[in-house]
Amino acid sequence: MINWKNLDTYPAFRELSGLKNEVNLALEMSGENGAQRVRTCAVPMASGLAYHYAAKSVNEKVLSALENLAREAQLTEKYQALLAGEIINTGEKRRVLHHLTRGQLAGQVMADGVDKRVFYTEQQTRAADFARRVHEGSVTNEKGEKFTTVVQIGIGGSDLGPRAMYLALENWARENGCFRMEARFISNVDPDDAAQVLKSTDLAHALFVLVSKSGTTLETLTNESFVRNALRSAGLDPSRHMVAVTSESSPLASSSDYLCAFFMDDYIGGRYSSTSCVGGVVLSLAFGPEVFERFLQGAAEEDRLALEPRATRNPAMLDALIGVYERNVLGYPATAVLPYSQALSRFPAHLQQLDMESNGKSVNRFGEPVSYPTGPVIFGEPGTNGQHSFYQLLHQGTDIVPLQFVGFKAGQAGMDVEIQGSTSQQKLCANVVAQIMAFACGKKDENPNKAFAGGRPSSIIIGQQLTPEALGSLLSHFENKVMFQGFLWNLNSFDQEGVQLGKVLAKKVLSHETDGALRAFSDLMDL
Amino acid sequence: MINWKNLDTYPAFRELSGLKNEVNLALEMSGENGAQRVRTCAVPMASGLAYHYAAKSVNEKVLSALENLAREAQLTEKYQALLAGEIINTGEKRRVLHHLTRGQLAGQVMADGVDKRVFYTEQQTRAADFARRVHEGSVTNEKGEKFTTVVQIGIGGSDLGPRAMYLALENWARENGCFRMEARFISNVDPDDAAQVLKSTDLAHALFVLVSKSGTTLETLTNESFVRNALRSAGLDPSRHMVAVTSESSPLASSSDYLCAFFMDDYIGGRYSSTSCVGGVVLSLAFGPEVFERFLQGAAEEDRLALEPRATRNPAMLDALIGVYERNVLGYPATAVLPYSQALSRFPAHLQQLDMESNGKSVNRFGEPVSYPTGPVIFGEPGTNGQHSFYQLLHQGTDIVPLQFVGFKAGQAGMDVEIQGSTSQQKLCANVVAQIMAFACGKKDENPNKAFAGGRPSSIIIGQQLTPEALGSLLSHFENKVMFQGFLWNLNSFDQEGVQLGKVLAKKVLSHETDGALRAFSDLMDL
Repeated sequence: MINWKNLDTYPAFRELSGLKNEVNLALEMSGENGAQRVRTCAVPMASGLAYHYAAKSVNEKVLSALENLAREAQLTEKYQALLAGEIINTGEKRRVLHHLTRGQLAGQVMADGVDKRVFYTEQQTRAADFARRVHEGSVTNEKGEKFTTVVQIGIGGSDLGPRAMYLALENWARENGCFRMEARFISNVDPDDAAQVLKSTDLAHALFVLVSKSGTTLETLTNESFVRNALRSAGLDPSRHMVAVTSESSPLASSSDYLCAFFMDDYIGGRYSSTSCVGGVVLSLAFGPEVFERFLQGAAEEDRLALEPRATRNPAMLDALIGVYERNVLGYPATAVLPYSQALSRFPAHLQQLDMESNGKSVNRFGEPVSYPTGPVIFGEPGTNGQHSFYQLLHQGTDIVPLQFVGFKAGQAGMDVEIQGSTSQQKLCANVVAQIMAFACGKKDENPNKAFAGGRPSSIIIGQQLTPEALGSLLSHFENKVMFQGFLWNLNSFDQEGVQLGKVLAKKVLSHETDGALRAFSDLMDL
Repeated sequence: MINWKNLDTYPAFRELSGLKNEVNLALEMSGENGAQRVRTCAVPMASGLAYHYAAKSVNEKVLSALENLAREAQLTEKYQALLAGEIINTGEKRRVLHHLTRGQLAGQVMADGVDKRVFYTEQQTRAADFARRVHEGSVTNEKGEKFTTVVQIGIGGSDLGPRAMYLALENWARENGCFRMEARFISNVDPDDAAQVLKSTDLAHALFVLVSKSGTTLETLTNESFVRNALRSAGLDPSRHMVAVTSESSPLASSSDYLCAFFMDDYIGGRYSSTSCVGGVVLSLAFGPEVFERFLQGAAEEDRLALEPRATRNPAMLDALIGVYERNVLGYPATAVLPYSQALSRFPAHLQQLDMESNGKSVNRFGEPVSYPTGPVIFGEPGTNGQHSFYQLLHQGTDIVPLQFVGFKAGQAGMDVEIQGSTSQQKLCANVVAQIMAFACGKKDENPNKAFAGGRPSSIIIGQQLTPEALGSLLSHFENKVMFQGFLWNLNSFDQEGVQLGKVLAKKVLSHETDGALRAFSDLMDL
């Protein structure tokens, strides 16, 4: 029997709240004790990754309280219920089924009269077949020529996740002979976005993927028209250049305006849709269906690890619990995501949506206000770039910001250079481990301007190389972390009512149904 | 006589601290009162921009306390002292002279035996002349062919600012016949970054701009070697393809490895260097020197406006003061920068460095710990994209995050499409004004999940179009805002000691001089 309860009702949370000044991180990470922590505070993940939490402000007492909290909050049972197809998205009365796009960890889930695992794999197979036909040249443009570029039109989850995944694997695919088509992305309703992409795209050989679950997303439909105009102006037939990814009930589903349509459904939120055909069509076209399949396998294996009930053996659960300790006991308001991998340049932007849109909420799943902080601000840029930018504040600012590092032993491109006795990749790796220690231990200095207080916690996920499998595991890790945190905060992490009001007011502005300050602001904008 | 004092020593700050629950923003912005606020709470900026603060949580009382604070903290006098060349960067005992790259608002500033305004304009003229010779074909590659691409190699301030400015003007330049050369950027020591750029660059026609003030930046020198290897492998002569931007005392200054060198100095920090030849060389090459000159003019005019002592007529000063009220009285830990302009896609990343590296500090300019919060976390993405991502938390999260919007009435590309009675640009503008009102006023709803508390403050800078002048003004606005906040917090905003420790430890890792946890982490990375 699952009980959905607020965080502050659990005895373990009261226990945890008493452990506020428990750990002197700088001391813990010093000397042989520190080395021992590094060797032991690690949880294996799938695809050769591991989650290392030696530099987090935790000790046995804190971890024990976190284990108790995980048990009292029934994190595993709630995850199992989600996997089994229960209505976890209570606000919208929907199942939450994105895990089914990459595996089946519970019994058959039926909805809308179909087995949903079968439905998702069917769509994936259709996307794979379509990509193969494009690659081999049996689906072509009007002149029978092969498509060379794929352009995704979508916004939010239809953009950030697929774009981040594409960038993450682009170099890898080029290096491993899997690069099939360049992918580009149009998202913003700002006409300069579409204009920029279209001006530098060979339209005659471009295939557009229009992604909108409802078929009514303002930005996406506007950009579709923009693209159709450009295609017609170039003497091309838009219906020969465009496919749709949408729900079966959407107006786009059976339109002759598209070469074909691939289907998603209401059980997968946009920010959880990279492993559905929202990511599957564009990524299969760009890198081939086999690469996308490997990406799904990495996610599926990580999903399985998240079933482990002992928090210290479950990387996503432990990451989630430590995050709640940092947010609700230590009182840190933000978290930085810092991948030491240029390929992950847009991964923080994806996590920003995933986390902030899922858990940036003030009422619990029953609509009652919660009396504790929920989702933090998430931001980040790749290292080492960030070191030369905002790390100053992270090291010496007045607020402590917990850090989530990611690093790989090997690069993707296989091009490197040795300078002063080390390769670029070694310099990259040396920098990330140096940063962890600088943040944790700090440095005394007679000049207070050059002193570092230390005590700034971080974790790092380390892998061999950013492969399709590793990327899938990484994505699943964070999706499941956010899910577990939502369970702990007793939120519905799967709706996003906070985005609605702005849409409604924007419509009023465009139809001139405004008064007061909204009218006055509209005047300023000549609307 | 200037007194450098901590924020909490000013009587006006105590006055301000008593005004914590002063303003009911939702109420203030309602009805005719709200419309009146929108019409009156605006400060003209240069280049046709204006700073609008109607939706900030301020009223006459708060503004009056802020005016007092500005006077007591001698903001104008401190700015004048900076302009006059006093040693404002006390930690490094340096003048702070970036304003001189675009104008002269005080008397002659002599340093190192030269008039620094003359020095900066000479370098700008040299960059302009060089760019013209490249464009007309009198500086060419080995074969006498024109260069078509410029690639900047730099990190931090040598990357983020110039890159953001390039992206901001790329569409505008194409539309206005000023687009001369494509620019690209290599920054990260991750070898995949350089590999990615080089693989898609026509090396034979590429001109590289190496930017390092000291001539010793690890990432930049490593990437230089990377590039030189690639050029040699392509049978090209690196010294015919590379210029340097550096200080006169750097090892790069007189090296025959470069076609020529342009000079900066220690009085301009990296994050303030976009208007120096750090931005000037690449932007003059990309868009022509006339465009760069217009950009400087926009900044110079905005710098002049920042001399106005009355805060309510000084946009940068008012923005700074309201930010301090939000940070130190209302207790908000982060600020989001949200440009409704795809061209400003990397402007938030530049502001993130500018702000967090300048004011993310815990000791005052005398090295004494301060007892109040200083610089907030800064993050942001362009709208409308952000609306479909992290705005959920901004609207309904448990923390309030003040918002800085930027919007333009007209797009840059001159390509637009009308759908359902409005253009894309109108939809973009309608969205930003709708968001301001949604954040300020919220919405009651019987379903608490769909209710919006409101009371979430924002400001907006509105302009006609993002031109070179407008961009210069926008940049200057934020630089001066950060400067005024540094004065208020009594920080040295112009050093960055917090970036040093990581560099030192990374060197130790690479030379294997490590023990304890750092050794153990290095082992994990196979170092």
